[in-house]
Amino acid sequence: MSTGRLNWPTPAVFTEDDVRAAVGMPEAIASARQALLALADGRARSPEPWHLDMAEGSVHVKGGALDGAATFATKLSSGFPGNAGRGLPTSDGFTAILDAATGQVRALLLDGGYLTELRTGAAGAVALDLLAAPRTETIAFVGTGGQIRHQITGALHVREPAAVILLGRRRAALESLAKWVRSGHDVDVRIQALNGSPIDADAVVTATTATSPILFPGQLRPGVHVTAVGSDSPGKRELDPAILLAADLVAVDERRQSMRIGELQGIPPNGLAIASITTLGALLRDGAPAWSPRRTSVADLSGTGAQDAAIAETAADRLLA
Amino acid sequence: MSTGRLNWPTPAVFTEDDVRAAVGMPEAIASARQALLALADGRARSPEPWHLDMAEGSVHVKGGALDGAATFATKLSSGFPGNAGRGLPTSDGFTAILDAATGQVRALLLDGGYLTELRTGAAGAVALDLLAAPRTETIAFVGTGGQIRHQITGALHVREPAAVILLGRRRAALESLAKWVRSGHDVDVRIQALNGSPIDADAVVTATTATSPILFPGQLRPGVHVTAVGSDSPGKRELDPAILLAADLVAVDERRQSMRIGELQGIPPNGLAIASITTLGALLRDGAPAWSPRRTSVADLSGTGAQDAAIAETAADRLLA
Repeated sequence: MSTGRLNWPTPAVFTEDDVRAAVGMPEAIASARQALLALADGRARSPEPWHLDMAEGSVHVKGGALDGAATFATKLSSGFPGNAGRGLPTSDGFTAILDAATGQVRALLLDGGYLTELRTGAAGAVALDLLAAPRTETIAFVGTGGQIRHQITGALHVREPAAVILLGRRRAALESLAKWVRSGHDVDVRIQALNGSPIDADAVVTATTATSPILFPGQLRPGVHVTAVGSDSPGKRELDPAILLAADLVAVDERRQSMRIGELQGIPPNGLAIASITTLGALLRDGAPAWSPRRTSVADLSGTGAQDAAIAETAADRLLA
Repeated sequence: MSTGRLNWPTPAVFTEDDVRAAVGMPEAIASARQALLALADGRARSPEPWHLDMAEGSVHVKGGALDGAATFATKLSSGFPGNAGRGLPTSDGFTAILDAATGQVRALLLDGGYLTELRTGAAGAVALDLLAAPRTETIAFVGTGGQIRHQITGALHVREPAAVILLGRRRAALESLAKWVRSGHDVDVRIQALNGSPIDADAVVTATTATSPILFPGQLRPGVHVTAVGSDSPGKRELDPAILLAADLVAVDERRQSMRIGELQGIPPNGLAIASITTLGALLRDGAPAWSPRRTSVADLSGTGAQDAAIAETAADRLLA
């Protein structure tokens, strides 16, 4: 018995291959700049994420909208860490794209988390571009998970270093990562154990799931820039707080979120001079202060719904055109 | 440049037609009983919904899991009331089905809100079956929106009345609804204006978007059963509070939710004797008290994530088999 309801057309469905073919790092970097600027100007709506805890993992829903955009997005992602031991992916996800004027579900992007990985790499590139030395000779990357590859790809879009240093605890994963970098880029690649020894680099990017510091002030050159990407939930931490406390400039994607789930967790509110904390969006809008060789800077990226909305809009523009 | 990530297979995608063919009212009623029982026994996980407000409407994400089930579900729905004036549907939505052990997105049901409409109709049937007179001669239905059709379908699965009365404010919509009922059922159909006049029925089901009472004690027979389905957000209300205060038995799907977004909103906590409020799940588990011709009962359904999870699991079982 039909209920005679008025219906929307079935939304377009795109696979991960479709999405990968439509959106790469250059578009993602443009989209990240747009999202960070919108956040700085209060033109982004992005409620706190929703989550459902299961026995073996959890599911998150994030989403957001940029004022004036034709579409907006919500994103579901699951994380089940125990899958790794069974040779299964530890995460899954997809993005829904909705019409901002009517709420119609326009498209589903079955991207398996690709857009999230990509937009995070792109935000890393934006941070590096704003804060690292204009002539960066050496960039170090800490971590051997999937995200570090997006950080490397992003960084090599905004800087042309002579060398990269890969640091981590799993030797085999580092060697595999080194091979991957060499296959795509004309750059010297070195491997270094993550054991507290000095890191001879102009910039250091961390993308790990650490819950206690893995990077300490004594390892860093004067004037270094550090971008921390890993912390995105309570209890995560990559940087020794002394790195943040000693920095001349700290830039975050979203201030309250960084204090709640990022590297600013547990940093006493008056430990950092208020003047030294800014947002990447404010730097994009107002211009970053001129780089100087003795200035130490830190960027902390915890990931925002505004970025999800912006990258989804970029994807929608290209896929639905 | 591939990032070499381990991937899940692309989820199965099902259209509204697929979902309608797979799940109808009988399965939905079984699933509603399962969900309401799980709620009563604390075997349902169902976080508060997530929502994103846009200029012209809003988007909600609900979801839940029943302990021990192989799958769980999240559901997105949009509501943009202004679409009606442009001849467009006012809502849209889809359901994602995930593997409870691994978090893999198994299927996407592009059901356009069908499962939500169906599970709501099924919960109405369960309430009526528990609380209305075993020999119900006449059932009245108040409302002319899409949901009232599911309430009628559900009711006619659990009772065989000689007559139904359709009440509403829009005459043309009532006539269209009457035609629809007659086309599918061998039942006498009467139309009545919604103007405060008495309703000569053993049971009354309301499914409107009212924000102030549309049903009053003076309209009702002694011993009537009333099911209210419409209230599902703050500020909605269908029943004059006096109906609840005078009822011998009030049963809700979820107690706290009924107080926050359902008909118990604004009812003084000690206005209703605690003993007179129960849940449909508790009645299913422990047995409903024997029906008596002078007992007035009210069921209030605000809709739960547990029901969404249960109907999605039913759909997944049939679609993925």
